Amino acid sequence: MAGTSLAMTEIVMTQPFSFALTKTDGAARRGRFVTPHGHVDTPAFMPVGTQATVKAVAPEEVAASGTQIVLGNTYHLMLRPGAERIAALGGLHKFMNWPGPILTDSGGFQVMSLSQLRKIDERAVTFRSHLDGAMFELSPERAIEIQLLLGADIVMQLDECVRLPASRADLEKAVSLSLRWAERCKRAFEEAPQGRALFGIVQGGDDRALRLDSARPLVDMGFQGYAIGGLAVGEPQDVMLSMIEAVAPVLPRDRPRYLMGVGTPDDLLEAVARGIDMFDCVLPTRNGRHGMAFTRFGPINIANARHAADPRPLDEESSHPATRTYSRAYLHHLHKANEMFGAMLLSAINLAYYQSLMAGMRAAIEAGRFGDFRGETKERWARGDIAAL
Amino acid sequence: MAGTSLAMTEIVMTQPFSFALTKTDGAARRGRFVTPHGHVDTPAFMPVGTQATVKAVAPEEVAASGTQIVLGNTYHLMLRPGAERIAALGGLHKFMNWPGPILTDSGGFQVMSLSQLRKIDERAVTFRSHLDGAMFELSPERAIEIQLLLGADIVMQLDECVRLPASRADLEKAVSLSLRWAERCKRAFEEAPQGRALFGIVQGGDDRALRLDSARPLVDMGFQGYAIGGLAVGEPQDVMLSMIEAVAPVLPRDRPRYLMGVGTPDDLLEAVARGIDMFDCVLPTRNGRHGMAFTRFGPINIANARHAADPRPLDEESSHPATRTYSRAYLHHLHKANEMFGAMLLSAINLAYYQSLMAGMRAAIEAGRFGDFRGETKERWARGDIAAL
Repeated sequence: MAGTSLAMTEIVMTQPFSFALTKTDGAARRGRFVTPHGHVDTPAFMPVGTQATVKAVAPEEVAASGTQIVLGNTYHLMLRPGAERIAALGGLHKFMNWPGPILTDSGGFQVMSLSQLRKIDERAVTFRSHLDGAMFELSPERAIEIQLLLGADIVMQLDECVRLPASRADLEKAVSLSLRWAERCKRAFEEAPQGRALFGIVQGGDDRALRLDSARPLVDMGFQGYAIGGLAVGEPQDVMLSMIEAVAPVLPRDRPRYLMGVGTPDDLLEAVARGIDMFDCVLPTRNGRHGMAFTRFGPINIANARHAADPRPLDEESSHPATRTYSRAYLHHLHKANEMFGAMLLSAINLAYYQSLMAGMRAAIEAGRFGDFRGETKERWARGDIAAL
Repeated sequence: MAGTSLAMTEIVMTQPFSFALTKTDGAARRGRFVTPHGHVDTPAFMPVGTQATVKAVAPEEVAASGTQIVLGNTYHLMLRPGAERIAALGGLHKFMNWPGPILTDSGGFQVMSLSQLRKIDERAVTFRSHLDGAMFELSPERAIEIQLLLGADIVMQLDECVRLPASRADLEKAVSLSLRWAERCKRAFEEAPQGRALFGIVQGGDDRALRLDSARPLVDMGFQGYAIGGLAVGEPQDVMLSMIEAVAPVLPRDRPRYLMGVGTPDDLLEAVARGIDMFDCVLPTRNGRHGMAFTRFGPINIANARHAADPRPLDEESSHPATRTYSRAYLHHLHKANEMFGAMLLSAINLAYYQSLMAGMRAAIEAGRFGDFRGETKERWARGDIAAL
């Protein structure tokens, strides 16, 4: 907050959104996309800033973790403080003091998971706010409008996201509605300022054929990037991976591919191995608040009594200062004492681990040794934490 | 946490604790004391790091606020994680990553306010932990031992702190027991490493004569500093100030004077005007967590709807980056959304305001215009916040 200074000036660039694939290694892809607020190296992990803050992490710390882009949630922000208010205050970048790129989701997923009395028809989804019961309506056009009011660099189409398991009929209905909404979003997005990108979202649940029925028309419509949605909703990892394998071949090679809401470190490794370029997930911050540290040694539950008197840091070889400075005993104490600083430290430590994993994958792809990196990383996780003292 | 780096090396100095009074202006005093972990300019405000963390503020932020010394709570730390454990981990400075000076209280005040089944006799106070009901004993000798295990630069005597209002008999008894405990603490402190300081504590409640009965024998015993305890326990400000006025004349001019547990910005101004050199208080962090900002314009309740759409920072002329960067609207939003980052920002902002107030007082005393500074500061508070938009 103090000490470091992020320039808050809105960077105005007029070049179009672009993505360059610089190297591949098997199906794994190394690339870079450029937005009005700077570039992002892929594969990239986006921390989630649900309510205009990455929970318990100051923007300077988010940047120090190696993060280049964060995600904002349309559903939360439209309810509080409201898209028009954020626009009047100069946009989300300025509001939350994050000068880098921002991707916003469309609100569809949270409408499904958080709101009450949801009603979907062709025109829009109508729902009650989980905050105060007020009625809201979210149409494809309004979803785009909100995201442009927020000032997102990357805007997501509104889609219908179905809980799994679901009947084939429900999945088909959602695919077909999401495609019609994709067209309406594309039309609404024509008014967007130069440089912003709109991504389409592939739905289809756990059905490979339906996934293709969703992906192919989306590709025909033409978007700047393609997301795979409706996964990480409780299905086994192999289902998720097989959906990626089904969809990836029909997606254009020269556009970024974003796997929404994923995942664990292992999910990231396996999805990159199948050609995914972008991820977002609350795990590093949410689990950090609950006392779990993600490390080279796999996940560590800092609440465990084995850490109570351990003077060693989580990982003394980490490049992240907090990861190698604070003792396990101290992190254990903060967690037991329910001190905010415990959540602050573990959230930042986990973001740094996620970003170091992404940096490791990017370097491995560049070096043509992604397979080795994947094996070594998983082997290190499997060996588990260093022995207790 | 990341980004900046505080050297974590324990600084070993062998010179004795010393205090130099460099300037006076009326009763107000400008000075500096030297500890094994660095010097402190007085008048000084010490943020409270109850459980080995200044709540919701990273050590780098505490330092960036202008803080030179923090306080640790013996009562909390002896219960969790335990003094012996912190000693085994290298001491409190290393444990909490605070390389500067630390003062620890003796635990007496929290035993009174937080523990259950307290029993005081000549030898010690026996109490049940508020955490798990375990029985603990705190004698003057153990209070010193704990503070030396923690590695405190400034150690406080164990005293008996009486709730106000109290009968004269109860106050007399506490004064006399506290004096006997002061002698035992002084004896126990003889084994302390070179450079550490022991402060005596003046008790006597709201009774001027008793305050003198407490202060004079303490001064005869000889301590490196003198605290005024048992105030800021609900009495009116004028009672507190009249106790300072009673005690200050009998305290040695060449030793620091510490008013424990105080206070509001106005309390600090008025107590410095009466010769106090040191303060500690949870107000800036506790009230920050509850949505109150301390500013040049007086206290501001960020939850108030008038801030909801206000793009202005709390104080655009502040030297503290967060104070002049984040909009009132954003701080309001974070508070309403119950986001930790709101507590983090307001705690850091409040510490920075408290420290800027102390720096202003120090500069005014040096310039021989403390009276003017006091008047101008109070006048600015009285004018209140800038007008709503």
